[in-house]
Amino acid sequence: MPAVSNKGQNMPESPIRKLVPFAEKAYKANKTVYHLNIGQPDIKSPQIAMDAVTNHSLEILAYTRSEGSEGYRKKIAAYYQSKNIPATHEDIIVTTGGSEALLFAMGSICDVDDEVIIPEPFYANYNGFATASGVTIVPVISKIENNFALPPISEFEKLITPKTKAILICNPGNPTGYLYSKEEIQKLAEMVKKHDLFLVADEVYREFTYDGSKHYSILEEEGMDDYAIIIDSVSKRYSMCGARIGCLVSKNKKVITTALKFAQARLSPPTFAQIASEAALQTPQSYFDDVITEYTERRNTLIAKLEEIPGVKVGHPKGAFYCIVELPIKNSDAFAQWLLEDFDVNGETIMVAPAAGFYSSKNVGLNQIRIAYVLKEESLITAVNILKIALQEYNE
Amino acid sequence: MPAVSNKGQNMPESPIRKLVPFAEKAYKANKTVYHLNIGQPDIKSPQIAMDAVTNHSLEILAYTRSEGSEGYRKKIAAYYQSKNIPATHEDIIVTTGGSEALLFAMGSICDVDDEVIIPEPFYANYNGFATASGVTIVPVISKIENNFALPPISEFEKLITPKTKAILICNPGNPTGYLYSKEEIQKLAEMVKKHDLFLVADEVYREFTYDGSKHYSILEEEGMDDYAIIIDSVSKRYSMCGARIGCLVSKNKKVITTALKFAQARLSPPTFAQIASEAALQTPQSYFDDVITEYTERRNTLIAKLEEIPGVKVGHPKGAFYCIVELPIKNSDAFAQWLLEDFDVNGETIMVAPAAGFYSSKNVGLNQIRIAYVLKEESLITAVNILKIALQEYNE
Repeated sequence: MPAVSNKGQNMPESPIRKLVPFAEKAYKANKTVYHLNIGQPDIKSPQIAMDAVTNHSLEILAYTRSEGSEGYRKKIAAYYQSKNIPATHEDIIVTTGGSEALLFAMGSICDVDDEVIIPEPFYANYNGFATASGVTIVPVISKIENNFALPPISEFEKLITPKTKAILICNPGNPTGYLYSKEEIQKLAEMVKKHDLFLVADEVYREFTYDGSKHYSILEEEGMDDYAIIIDSVSKRYSMCGARIGCLVSKNKKVITTALKFAQARLSPPTFAQIASEAALQTPQSYFDDVITEYTERRNTLIAKLEEIPGVKVGHPKGAFYCIVELPIKNSDAFAQWLLEDFDVNGETIMVAPAAGFYSSKNVGLNQIRIAYVLKEESLITAVNILKIALQEYNE
Repeated sequence: MPAVSNKGQNMPESPIRKLVPFAEKAYKANKTVYHLNIGQPDIKSPQIAMDAVTNHSLEILAYTRSEGSEGYRKKIAAYYQSKNIPATHEDIIVTTGGSEALLFAMGSICDVDDEVIIPEPFYANYNGFATASGVTIVPVISKIENNFALPPISEFEKLITPKTKAILICNPGNPTGYLYSKEEIQKLAEMVKKHDLFLVADEVYREFTYDGSKHYSILEEEGMDDYAIIIDSVSKRYSMCGARIGCLVSKNKKVITTALKFAQARLSPPTFAQIASEAALQTPQSYFDDVITEYTERRNTLIAKLEEIPGVKVGHPKGAFYCIVELPIKNSDAFAQWLLEDFDVNGETIMVAPAAGFYSSKNVGLNQIRIAYVLKEESLITAVNILKIALQEYNE
């Protein structure tokens, strides 16, 4: 029998996927499972986007341009300009989700064995795209003690080698919820210019910032035209994860020309989803205001309840809808499995994402989990209560 | 300024894309351009598929399973079983177009610098996926003289090295229209078993066979469970190129487990397009019968008219909707550009795909073009007449 590739064998499994068989076991045992583990929001997609698809009048579901239609890209550019991001439609390639934008970015700037430095914990699928692209991820540890703020620049600089091609950040962060300050972005900008590296920023949670704090994009910073690559997506912004529409943004013409060749090879992004995404740009500000209010309340409740549990430490998020929680346990993989397999409170339990999968360093974050606050407030309260009882029982 | 990758620089441009600026020049000069260059059919998508999307009642456009929903995969499996392909839903991963299925296949079975042997001329984007995956394409020439039939197995065997991981075929072929016979598939099957290679078959044109000839899938052949990987797509079958839904099919469990990890990294295929594609499986046979009748007539007219032109040789297609045409010229790139830039018949001209881009070998196919018969019969007649006059004038 012919063998699969080493690359394929090295592709990481999702840190959550491992738990799926145990979740299925819990369902079979008729347990109610509160899903704190996933980034699928329960927020409705904007009606205007869904209606645009309901009202489509296409007779032939044809290819679009590989880079997305000019009309859609012009509207995306107008959105960016409203956020002080000086992008034009020529700086934008529409992609099949932020995932594909990341894949195109890695392919465009990295050769096999090149290195990308990423503050950890980071979005676990970066590992998958790196493996698929033959790229080595070099992690630099950020700490729960300061809510996962940017590590000192000197820590990055220790890791820069001739093979380093880029720094990759997620801002606001999944899984940390950390929102980089303008000063932190400026420090990163200074560093990439000094060392001639790209700065790739996954800004898909741009809209989700709390307590009046403002997102500062890497393209708001002056002098970054040659260095900045933004990864974006409609998935979280409009609760349209299933659209699979994102984009890659750069004012570096060579990057755009190169990424466009990857885009041409796969022909075009999905047509219906582009119709929905173009319409979604007309979503009124009130939609976002309501969403931010909702998430702020959820976050406040979640953090307050979590901090009532003895021995629990929480990284306070200022953005996105995740937080990392440190538990008084040794191994959150085993704990997460136990929650599904061997535990319940009146037939109810919780599913959490063990945080080790968000670290590239070995044996780090073993006592941490990621919680996504994508459930209604009352469900979050119940879920945290279940966690509290579980920890008592687990540590007896 | 940081530099793009060598991989990015080596990504090929589409052979058609180069002509786009000249086509735009032609439009500006108010010329009518008959597009013989593209594989976007003018056939309507099945109403049942379009209606399924119009009638959607989703409130949240959520992720689906990474491998596609079980319901959809079970229906795909039933479709395959109706075609004598013994696939179950567990052998299927739904992908974002056939393009992504190919990318997953290459990633799952090839490491960097591994080799895949492909009869040329072949679908130009195979070059892009190979470059993106770090895979080397090793071409084996097929000839217009026998309509691009399978080259002798001995020619393949000469090219097999320890780095060879797979043979890749497109059946029926883009750009050749050649339909491999059962005997040819059996020869390939014997060879891959003997040399322990994968046989990857891009069968996206399965439905498009003419003159009563029948498609024989690599999975219809017994004993191929460990070796066969099918690449499939709804794009051509249902004239739904813009859906971006395809699938990867294999009965080799290791291949499926590995490809699934690539699928998980990019989360899920597009949701609306899966709704359309699942509904499309209910398309009545009459739809395909009508389409086949239409393409057969177009093909017959096209070939007859082309063969009336002195010095023109045509590879007779038995499937898909392309043919390779050899012209009495030296360089079809220059000719295709001249057609758009410097030529017209009463304000009308044609756009063709120079065939050199479909060959991996250098300096082969320079006097060939690919014609897609995706236009109505009367337009094809006009277009071939323009080609005839153009060749006279070009060769004066």
